[in-house]
Amino acid sequence: MAEREGERRAGPLLTRYGRWRRRLQYEFFGGVSATSKAVDVTVIIAILASVVVVMLESIPQLQRNYGGLLLGLEWGFTAIFTIEYVLRLMCAKRPGPYARSFYGVIDLLAILPTYLSALLPGAQALLVIRLMRMLRVFRVLKLVQYYDAGDILYEAMRASWRKIMVFMIAVLALVTILGSLIYLIEGAENGYDSIPRSIYWAIVTLTTVGYGDISPSTAAGQALAAVVMIIGYAIIAVPTGIVSSEFALMRRNYTAGKVCGRCYQADHPKNALYCHNCGDML
Amino acid sequence: MAEREGERRAGPLLTRYGRWRRRLQYEFFGGVSATSKAVDVTVIIAILASVVVVMLESIPQLQRNYGGLLLGLEWGFTAIFTIEYVLRLMCAKRPGPYARSFYGVIDLLAILPTYLSALLPGAQALLVIRLMRMLRVFRVLKLVQYYDAGDILYEAMRASWRKIMVFMIAVLALVTILGSLIYLIEGAENGYDSIPRSIYWAIVTLTTVGYGDISPSTAAGQALAAVVMIIGYAIIAVPTGIVSSEFALMRRNYTAGKVCGRCYQADHPKNALYCHNCGDML
Amino acid sequence: MAEREGERRAGPLLTRYGRWRRRLQYEFFGGVSATSKAVDVTVIIAILASVVVVMLESIPQLQRNYGGLLLGLEWGFTAIFTIEYVLRLMCAKRPGPYARSFYGVIDLLAILPTYLSALLPGAQALLVIRLMRMLRVFRVLKLVQYYDAGDILYEAMRASWRKIMVFMIAVLALVTILGSLIYLIEGAENGYDSIPRSIYWAIVTLTTVGYGDISPSTAAGQALAAVVMIIGYAIIAVPTGIVSSEFALMRRNYTAGKVCGRCYQADHPKNALYCHNCGDML
Amino acid sequence: MAEREGERRAGPLLTRYGRWRRRLQYEFFGGVSATSKAVDVTVIIAILASVVVVMLESIPQLQRNYGGLLLGLEWGFTAIFTIEYVLRLMCAKRPGPYARSFYGVIDLLAILPTYLSALLPGAQALLVIRLMRMLRVFRVLKLVQYYDAGDILYEAMRASWRKIMVFMIAVLALVTILGSLIYLIEGAENGYDSIPRSIYWAIVTLTTVGYGDISPSTAAGQALAAVVMIIGYAIIAVPTGIVSSEFALMRRNYTAGKVCGRCYQADHPKNALYCHNCGDML
Repeated sequence: MAEREGERRAGPLLTRYGRWRRRLQYEFFGGVSATSKAVDVTVIIAILASVVVVMLESIPQLQRNYGGLLLGLEWGFTAIFTIEYVLRLMCAKRPGPYARSFYGVIDLLAILPTYLSALLPGAQALLVIRLMRMLRVFRVLKLVQYYDAGDILYEAMRASWRKIMVFMIAVLALVTILGSLIYLIEGAENGYDSIPRSIYWAIVTLTTVGYGDISPSTAAGQALAAVVMIIGYAIIAVPTGIVSSEFALMRRNYTAGKVCGRCYQADHPKNALYCHNCGDML
Repeated sequence: MAEREGERRAGPLLTRYGRWRRRLQYEFFGGVSATSKAVDVTVIIAILASVVVVMLESIPQLQRNYGGLLLGLEWGFTAIFTIEYVLRLMCAKRPGPYARSFYGVIDLLAILPTYLSALLPGAQALLVIRLMRMLRVFRVLKLVQYYDAGDILYEAMRASWRKIMVFMIAVLALVTILGSLIYLIEGAENGYDSIPRSIYWAIVTLTTVGYGDISPSTAAGQALAAVVMIIGYAIIAVPTGIVSSEFALMRRNYTAGKVCGRCYQADHPKNALYCHNCGDML
Repeated sequence: MAEREGERRAGPLLTRYGRWRRRLQYEFFGGVSATSKAVDVTVIIAILASVVVVMLESIPQLQRNYGGLLLGLEWGFTAIFTIEYVLRLMCAKRPGPYARSFYGVIDLLAILPTYLSALLPGAQALLVIRLMRMLRVFRVLKLVQYYDAGDILYEAMRASWRKIMVFMIAVLALVTILGSLIYLIEGAENGYDSIPRSIYWAIVTLTTVGYGDISPSTAAGQALAAVVMIIGYAIIAVPTGIVSSEFALMRRNYTAGKVCGRCYQADHPKNALYCHNCGDML
Repeated sequence: MAEREGERRAGPLLTRYGRWRRRLQYEFFGGVSATSKAVDVTVIIAILASVVVVMLESIPQLQRNYGGLLLGLEWGFTAIFTIEYVLRLMCAKRPGPYARSFYGVIDLLAILPTYLSALLPGAQALLVIRLMRMLRVFRVLKLVQYYDAGDILYEAMRASWRKIMVFMIAVLALVTILGSLIYLIEGAENGYDSIPRSIYWAIVTLTTVGYGDISPSTAAGQALAAVVMIIGYAIIAVPTGIVSSEFALMRRNYTAGKVCGRCYQADHPKNALYCHNCGDML
C-alpha cells in the first residue's frame, strides 16, 4: 500500500520502474505464471550445467585437453548467476531479508568463489571453493515446492525427525560398543588398529554396506560380525516403520476428516456432502 | 456389428475366414479360455528358452563346443516368433494400432535382430541385437494382467511415482555433494581421481552396496563414509514409507469400497448407510 | 469312539497299552501339558546339539583331534531320534498319515543318513547325507505353532505370496536385461566373461550385497552400476510395502470387527459388549 | 511419611541434611526441573567425553605422544563419576535397591575399572576394563525417557519383540542350511573350509552386507549365492512390516484413544458415543 502511495507521488519513470519491479518480483519469487516457471527451469538447467562443468574439470585428461573451454564456461555461468542475483536483490520487496535468507546466502556463495579464485589461485583452495558451488544443486529442490509430493515428503521427514534422532543415538551407542568389542577380539594385527577404526567397521557392517576393506579373520570376530549383521538387518525396520506410519497418518489426514454435526460420525471423505451414518447434511 | 454385417453379405469362405479370425483374435488377445491361456504359456516358455539360448551362447566354452546347435535353436525360435507375429497381425481387429502398440513393437524387435544378423555379421553388433531380444522377457509380465497382484503392484508404483522421483532428485543432489566432499578429503592418490568417480563411490556407499573397489583410507574419509552410510541406512525408509502407505490406501479402497447405486460415488466406509454424495440410501 | 470299544473288549493288558498309547499320543502330538512341552523342548535341544556336532565335524582340526568323540555323539543322537521316531509311529492315531506327513518324512530323513553312511562310506557322500540332517533345524519351527506371533508371520507370508512372486519375476527380468547390458559395456576383459556371470553381478548389485569380486572399471559401466544400485535401493520398498500392508490389514482384522446389529456400526473391538454408536447390546 | 516423622523428631542439623537430601534426590532421580535436567546433561557430556578419551587412547600415535594427558583425563573423569555415584547412593530413598538396579550396577562398573587398573596393570586387561566403561554410553539413553519419541520406539520394540524373535529363528535355520549347501558346492578349496565359516558367508550374503572376503567362484556357487541374495532382499520386508504395523497401531491408540470414565476401558474409536465395555455414555 505504502509502496503504491510512493509511486503515485513519484514521476512516470519511477512508476514504470515500480511496475517493472513488481513484475520481476512476481516472476522471481514463487510466481505461478508460465513465465516465472520458465525462469525457474532456466536457472535450474544453468545450475546443473555449471555443476557438470565443475565435474568435468575434475577429470584429469579433460582438464588437460579442454581446460580453457571449461574455465570459460565456468566464468560464463558465474556471470549469468551474478546478473540473476543482482536482479533478485533489486526486485525483492525488502532486499535485506532476502540477502539474509537461506537461498539468498546460497545465491551469493554460488557466485563468490569464482571471483575469489581470481584473486587467490591454488588448486586445493579452488576445489574447496568449487565444492561450495555444488550447494547450488540444493536450489533444484526449490522446484519441489511446486509439487504436493515434495510437501508430503518434507512433512513426513519433519514429523518423524525426533524419533529418527533417538534411533540414531541408540545406533551410535551400539556401534561404539560393538566396535570396541571387535577391537578387543581381533586386535591391531587384523587391521582393527584403533577403536575409532573398529567403530568405522561396525558402521560399515551394521548398515550392511560391507566394503570388505576390514573384515574379521578370527572365528570369534566372524561370530561377532554375524551378530552385528543380523542386528543391522533387523533394526533397519525401525526408521522404516517410523516413516511409514507418518505417511499413513498424513494420508489419512488428507483423505478423511469431516465429522457429522448430528451423530458425531467421523472420517467422512473430503468430498462428502451428507453424513453416511444418519444421512444428515454435513 | 458392422463386421458381422460384412460377413453375412460375404460368401461362406470369407465367413469361415472371419469366424476363424475372430477365434484367433479371442485366443491371442486377452482371452480367458483354457486354449488362450495355453497359447500364452507356450509363448512365454518359448521366450524364456530363447533367452536361455542367448545366455548359453555367451559362455565361451559352450560357444566353442555347441555353437552350431545353439545357432540352430536361435533360428528356430526366431521362426516360431515370426509365425506368431504374422498371425497376431492377421487376426488383430485393426492391425495398425497393434503394430504401433508397445507389445507390437517389442514383438517386431524380438524377431528382426536375427534376420539383420544374417545380413551384417559381427560379434559385437550381434550381441547388441541379441540384447534387444532380451526385452522379450518383459512379455512374461503380460501374464501379470491375469493376476490381481500385478494390478495392485502397478497401481502402487503409478500412485507413488511422483514422490519417488522427488526423493530420487534429493538423493542425486546428496550424492553429488557427498561425492565432491570425499574427492576433496581423499584425493586422487586414494583412488578418488575425479568427482564423477567420487559420486559413483557415494552412490555405492549410500545404497549400502559397498563394493570396496574404492574405499576411504584416511581417518577423515572414513568418518565421512560413516556419515554417508548412516544417512543411506536412515533414508531408505522414505521410499519404503511412500510405497507402504500407497499399498495400505489401495488395500482400504479394495476392502471397504461401497458404491452408491444412484450417483456411483465410490469408497464409502463399510458402515456407511447413506451415500455421502447424494444422500441416497445405499 | 471305535477305539474305546476295542479296548473294552480287549483284556486289561491291551487296555493298559491303549491308555499308555493315548497318553504318549497326547504328549507327542500338539499336547499343551507341561510334559509334552518338555518333550518338545528336549527334542529341539537334541536337534540343535546334533546339528552343532555336524558343524564341528566339518572343522578340519577338530575332525583330526576329536573325530572319534564326534562320531560317537553323532551315533548317539541318531539312536535317540530313532527311538523317538518309533514311539511316534507306535502312538500315532493312524501311523500311515503321520509317516507320509511333512514332519514324518523329515523325522525319517533325519535318522536314515547315519545308517546309510555305515553301509557306504565316503567323505563327500557323508557330507551330503549330513546336510540332509540339517533339515531337522526346521523342526525347531514346530515350536512356533505355540506362538500367536508365528501364526501372524505365516499368515502374512501366505497372503502376500502371490504379489511377492510377481515382484520377483519383474526383478528377474530386470537383472537379465541389466546383466546383458553390463556384459556389452564391460566385456570379458573386465571379468564379465558371460551373460550368466553378468546377471550374477546384476543380482549382487541390485540386492545391494556388493561383494566386489566383479565390479565395473569403465566409466560407462560404473554409470550403469550406479543406475542399478539406485533402482535396487528404490524397489526394495515394494516387497516391504506389500508385507507391511498385509500386517496392517491382519492387525485390523484381529483388533476390530464386531458390527452392531441395530445401527450397523462396524469396527468394535473384540471385547466390546455394547455398540459405541447407539449403546445397544451387541 | 515415616521419613518426615523421623526428621521432625531429629535435630535441626539432621533436618537440614534431610531437606538437602530430598533436594538431591529430586535432582538426581527423574526430576523435571531445569537444575535436574542440567545435571543429567552434564553427566552425559562427561560420559561422552570420557568415552572419547578411551577411544583416543586406543590410537597408537596419540597414545605415544599424549599418553600422560589422556591417562590424567581418564582419572579425572573417574573421580567425577565416583563422586556422582556416592552422591546418588547417599540421596537415594533406599540405597540398596538403587545399588542393585540396572543403572546402579552400571554406575559402579563405570568407575571400578580405573581403580582395578591401578592394582593390576596390563594392556589387554586394561582394554577389557575400558571396554566395560563403554557401557556408560547406554546411560545417554536415559535422556530418551524425557521424549515421547523414545517411549514410542521402546513400546514398538517391546510389542514386536516376539515376532522378531520367531523371524530370527527362521533366518538362523535358513542360513544354517544355505551355509551347508554352499559348503558342499564350493568346498574348502574356494575358502569355504568349514560349515561355520560357510554359515558366516550365508549371513554376510543374506543380510546384503557382502564383504567379498569369501565369495563363490564356481557357477553353481554363484547361482546359490544369487538365490540367497534374492531371499535376503525379499524377507527384509518381514521385520519391517512387523514394526511398521506396530507403529501404525500405536499411532492410532495415541490419536484415537477415548477412555471410559466409569470402567476406564480404553481405545474407543474417535466416533464412540458409549463405552463398549459398560455401555456408559462417554
